[in-house]
Amino acid sequence: MKVVIIGGVAGGATAAARLRRLDERAEIVVFERGGYVSYANCGLPYYLGGKIARREKLTLQTPQSFKRRFNVDVRVHSEVTQILRAEKKVRVRTPDGREYFESYDKLIYSPGAKPLRPPFAGDSERVFTLRTVEDTFRIDDFIKREHPKTAIVAGGGFIGLEAAENLAERGISVTVLQMEEQVMPPFDYDMACILHSHMREKGVDLRLKSKVTALDASGGTVAAQIEGGAEISADFVLLALGVVPETQLAAEAGLELGLKGAVAVDAHMRTSDPDIYAVGDAVQIKNTITGREALVPLAGPANKQGRIAADNLCGLPSTYKGAQGTSVLKLFDLTAAAAGLNERAALQANIPFGSVVLFSPDHATYYPGAQNMTLKVLYNRIDGKIIGAQAVGFAGVDKRIDVLAAAIYAGMTAEQLTELDLAYAPPYSSAKDPVNMAGYAIGNIRGGLVRQHTWRDMPALLKRDDIVLLDVQTEGEFEEAHFEGALNIPVDELRSRMNELDRGKTVYVNCYSGLRSYIACRILSANGFECSNLSGGMRFYRVVEEGGSYDDLPRHLCGMRSE
Amino acid sequence: MKVVIIGGVAGGATAAARLRRLDERAEIVVFERGGYVSYANCGLPYYLGGKIARREKLTLQTPQSFKRRFNVDVRVHSEVTQILRAEKKVRVRTPDGREYFESYDKLIYSPGAKPLRPPFAGDSERVFTLRTVEDTFRIDDFIKREHPKTAIVAGGGFIGLEAAENLAERGISVTVLQMEEQVMPPFDYDMACILHSHMREKGVDLRLKSKVTALDASGGTVAAQIEGGAEISADFVLLALGVVPETQLAAEAGLELGLKGAVAVDAHMRTSDPDIYAVGDAVQIKNTITGREALVPLAGPANKQGRIAADNLCGLPSTYKGAQGTSVLKLFDLTAAAAGLNERAALQANIPFGSVVLFSPDHATYYPGAQNMTLKVLYNRIDGKIIGAQAVGFAGVDKRIDVLAAAIYAGMTAEQLTELDLAYAPPYSSAKDPVNMAGYAIGNIRGGLVRQHTWRDMPALLKRDDIVLLDVQTEGEFEEAHFEGALNIPVDELRSRMNELDRGKTVYVNCYSGLRSYIACRILSANGFECSNLSGGMRFYRVVEEGGSYDDLPRHLCGMRSE
Repeated sequence: MKVVIIGGVAGGATAAARLRRLDERAEIVVFERGGYVSYANCGLPYYLGGKIARREKLTLQTPQSFKRRFNVDVRVHSEVTQILRAEKKVRVRTPDGREYFESYDKLIYSPGAKPLRPPFAGDSERVFTLRTVEDTFRIDDFIKREHPKTAIVAGGGFIGLEAAENLAERGISVTVLQMEEQVMPPFDYDMACILHSHMREKGVDLRLKSKVTALDASGGTVAAQIEGGAEISADFVLLALGVVPETQLAAEAGLELGLKGAVAVDAHMRTSDPDIYAVGDAVQIKNTITGREALVPLAGPANKQGRIAADNLCGLPSTYKGAQGTSVLKLFDLTAAAAGLNERAALQANIPFGSVVLFSPDHATYYPGAQNMTLKVLYNRIDGKIIGAQAVGFAGVDKRIDVLAAAIYAGMTAEQLTELDLAYAPPYSSAKDPVNMAGYAIGNIRGGLVRQHTWRDMPALLKRDDIVLLDVQTEGEFEEAHFEGALNIPVDELRSRMNELDRGKTVYVNCYSGLRSYIACRILSANGFECSNLSGGMRFYRVVEEGGSYDDLPRHLCGMRSE
Repeated sequence: MKVVIIGGVAGGATAAARLRRLDERAEIVVFERGGYVSYANCGLPYYLGGKIARREKLTLQTPQSFKRRFNVDVRVHSEVTQILRAEKKVRVRTPDGREYFESYDKLIYSPGAKPLRPPFAGDSERVFTLRTVEDTFRIDDFIKREHPKTAIVAGGGFIGLEAAENLAERGISVTVLQMEEQVMPPFDYDMACILHSHMREKGVDLRLKSKVTALDASGGTVAAQIEGGAEISADFVLLALGVVPETQLAAEAGLELGLKGAVAVDAHMRTSDPDIYAVGDAVQIKNTITGREALVPLAGPANKQGRIAADNLCGLPSTYKGAQGTSVLKLFDLTAAAAGLNERAALQANIPFGSVVLFSPDHATYYPGAQNMTLKVLYNRIDGKIIGAQAVGFAGVDKRIDVLAAAIYAGMTAEQLTELDLAYAPPYSSAKDPVNMAGYAIGNIRGGLVRQHTWRDMPALLKRDDIVLLDVQTEGEFEEAHFEGALNIPVDELRSRMNELDRGKTVYVNCYSGLRSYIACRILSANGFECSNLSGGMRFYRVVEEGGSYDDLPRHLCGMRSE
């Protein structure tokens, strides 16, 4: 069997290695357009910031090491320019302009995706994208040569924010221009607000709803036109506007395409041509929660798909069932991670969902160093299944999202979250882990023990005079921040001061994080009041509505004493 | 409804709080024999070490705060001495020796467990146990007063090791005497060996197979007799020999008992008396993997059970399905965590199991700070389901065990582990998380791609001359450590040097961690050799068989370059 692989990074390299482990005799040829294979794609931004200091760290594998270990014929600087399906061969162009054909028995198509580069980007040497090792070295060389003071990062997704952090770490003053009202599309707006505050605190000039419409690099700097008329200049621009699948070859070869032109594959990663498999950022996969087609251009799925394609070439019928889009971002001191659907995706999929927002310590509050994270969990209101989760905080964030990702994968309900037997010792968690707590919180809502409203409801509520706004924080907390017109009765005084409440009115309760106000709601309900709990409390409201600084807000720990 | 709760720590306090949230009118009385309620039980060892510096940190809740927040009548220093089921009342003794009766409609029995204290322990003021806040202060006072230089900790379980670490942190020279051949019963012997090395490096005098048979505190020190004749003295002794359920009251009241006298309960935490519920360390629960009765005296289960008992008292029929015994230990720089069954438990349950041992970086090796963990995963050989996991390392250990705990809970197979969509960015994980990798490794074994042997097989193999021992490490690694008689062919040279191998003999292959030797086995198999891979590699063998220091062994990172 002779296997040709187009693309030697995540999916292609994994496929080649697995192929060799399964078939010592196969002839395996990998064509890589760039000069590097199996490189540390996700590490590229960190090279810019100096966290990864040596070039060799980015390029762990070389064509030579791949040959030695896996007896794979890796040809870099070799671009496949055509797939000739009828003849089962590919046309290859080498750096010297030579062209030749290479035949295959089976082909694996793994070219990845390319950064969006709008027509206005031109070809200035001050306008970059960041996708390959070459891109990275180009930016790094530019910085070393020109000593830029300022940079514009256009785009607030993973690459944009990782680049922004790393350029800032390098002492460059960074402006991030993001078209949407929020950064990081996997997150809901409210969760993204925590990231907005944190970036701004770290000195990044974040401009939301700022779509770049033109770039002018004719001077010694680059001027960016922003829709609506504003203009901003910087020494260079990094375009991080997202990626599109590299599917021109596939399209020209007549392979069946799907979303945004991505290659359509079956569960075995086989395209419409039974001799051609496709993996990685170039393919359309299934979202395992909605069952719908999706593009998930991430390293994890690409690696898994590469292995599965190799399995199938060798007669192991393994299948790729799809992705949940689990992801994580380091942003300065914060970690932000998400799994499954966010609100937008749930709405698009017509899933009737609810959500809870918790502010939970990563470990026992009495053990040093505990820090709260904001954890939002979405569930299907019909069957109680967990459909998505997002968390932002300082420690233990990736752990909770990975556990929730496993729960989503397994189709667990909120009740099952409460049953998870998670590892507890004071340095690591609490006796009831935040994941358990999310299950309890959802159970309380689904069981009718409490109703809740969110920050979205507050502007309207603040205008009504037929309700009571009850703030059950301590007096000190109340002084620090409260809703106009709110009545302050600390939760511990509620039983004795209930006569201060108007029984004819619905009571909208808040505390700092939403936990004491839940207790207050239980007390009120038992006393015949209609009431509702502000999800996420005053803290979350301020983060979202007032752009409140996540760090400046007192880091209350939700032990029972304070909450 | 009047509810009496015996015991005001984890299970009892949780039950009281949940009860109140569900029933504002219930009369709730909590009797606590000690002086503190709802205290930071698991934090007690850290108070001894100074990590938790203030006494108030241990006692977040007071009877007063509990009263204010939850309107619960908490009576400390009040020991229930009898349950009179026919009359539905309890007999209570107060510190002044007074006795009275308190009636109940429903009773929750949550007295916890008590430390084993063998008869020979006597009542010396130099011989301690560590279970309550009072115990902790007693030890702390002793240390402050007597400035002991040396301590013996008898017992190598959670409390023993946490205490040993914390006493050592306080500058006390600690000897740990452990009856078994290993510390930490939830772990297999081989995994525990990593802990043995680490403790010894940290200066703890760990003596295994050392059963204390007598203590003599007649001098100014305590002399411990060890079975077999040895004797060792120290300024004081902490007995951490395990706990037994506190069930005397239950037994006297005629409640049905189970394992080790623990109280038998149904899934609603109800005892054989429909008006009495029991929760926490005193009850017998189910191991959810084996379906068998088990004692799991941990805080997580106790908290969950307390909430479930309260639910049921208030008409919410929630159930407790059991525990997997997930647990985690901080031991100096190491984290050790486990979920589900270990080998011993799997054998006892007659589950035909296999295991894999991985040495995986907690995050991408090219991003700074990556450290390997040892991850052992047990699976059912019949159906491929994951039944247990243990991990020891420096970072990311608790995360992987929590994900595996969720996988075990969900009944996932090894193949499903490979499908888990876990959060990846270089600071947090690798594109294939160690959990995914464990699934792949098991799949390769179950799929017949590789056979493996373990460190247990090595002594016998080393005596045989009808086999080939093949070491595929680099020459430098081979020089550092290799099996006597082993042939060294680095994996990358194997294809060209295969003629050096005797085709008539089975080849037993090792590398450093087990990954390169797997690749070597694939090459050998394809060339017609019978071969087997040393699980966990030379590293794990040395840790186990030679007491090799975990930290001194080169911290190879399993990127593809080295592995």
